[in-house]
Amino acid sequence: MELKETRLSTSLVYDGDFLKVYKDSARMPDGSTSTREFITHPGAVAVLAILDNGKLLFERQFRYAPQREFIEIPAGKIDQGEAILLTAKRELLEETGYTATEWTHLHTVWPCIGYADERMEYFLARGLRHEGHRLDEGEFLEVFDLTLNEAMDWVRSGRINDSKTMLGLLLLEKHLAEWAR
Amino acid sequence: MELKETRLSTSLVYDGDFLKVYKDSARMPDGSTSTREFITHPGAVAVLAILDNGKLLFERQFRYAPQREFIEIPAGKIDQGEAILLTAKRELLEETGYTATEWTHLHTVWPCIGYADERMEYFLARGLRHEGHRLDEGEFLEVFDLTLNEAMDWVRSGRINDSKTMLGLLLLEKHLAEWAR
Repeated sequence: MELKETRLSTSLVYDGDFLKVYKDSARMPDGSTSTREFITHPGAVAVLAILDNGKLLFERQFRYAPQREFIEIPAGKIDQGEAILLTAKRELLEETGYTATEWTHLHTVWPCIGYADERMEYFLARGLRHEGHRLDEGEFLEVFDLTLNEAMDWVRSGRINDSKTMLGLLLLEKHLAEWAR
Repeated sequence: MELKETRLSTSLVYDGDFLKVYKDSARMPDGSTSTREFITHPGAVAVLAILDNGKLLFERQFRYAPQREFIEIPAGKIDQGEAILLTAKRELLEETGYTATEWTHLHTVWPCIGYADERMEYFLARGLRHEGHRLDEGEFLEVFDLTLNEAMDWVRSGRINDSKTMLGLLLLEKHLAEWAR
């Protein structure tokens, strides 16, 4: 079955500081015309950072849109033209103060396909060394660590309920166990 | 550490058919004032639907924002005032033509905390019976089934790369195995 929806016209209907909203007219698979609203996003990285003692780095952070605190893995937006590995290194350092010597790309995923073109790149970081914090202006967060088992208990109980963090932890467990064979 | 960002003022800067964008002024934890842009979303459900033969229901669907096809579990937005279990039953029937007799709520997660207040409710559905399709106007998708093992191979290989579907499958595997004990 042909499912593609073909762009007929596009317009930038909201040009914000961070959010850009487009409203397109598109031809549907049955030949009809429909409207599609969506956000463009530069893409993001998320980092599963494993300390030499086996623990993982987490952040506690208030998120304005949902108006609550979340426990998250380090993550951030790709700067224009930036290679994704550089984004991962930059965000890990800015948010947690750590550098890492071993980097592995795990997955490319789409977190919000109903209304955004954002893709997210998951990295595994090992060989961590604490260099010191350089939080971006306007960024407030607290860094701490947990074992993977502790984190998985928090996923099960709902204490960790940020999708990107839950997915990262579950993928990491797979990569460390059966997918490593 | 106090991390809360307090709303000082809010304005609806884009009032679209589906997307509503707000731009707020907010007081940061350090006392400074900053701007926060975000989208409001009614919330959504996602359904892990297990047939009597053990296979899971999937959909192939073109998503306009990322301009590509995805393999997804059934999912959809909560109508205003609708109980989430009713949303799950409605979306499963509308998208796949199935009803189910056994429903279990698995998790509440936040898929897009950087710029949306959307929450997503995961359900497990069993006791499936095919009733016939009633796709919403303007909705085009193809329904098929996979075993959990097949689906997990597709997650590993990147053929399934929609975050909500990946997370749902990995959570389901946990619930069916170690978390069921």
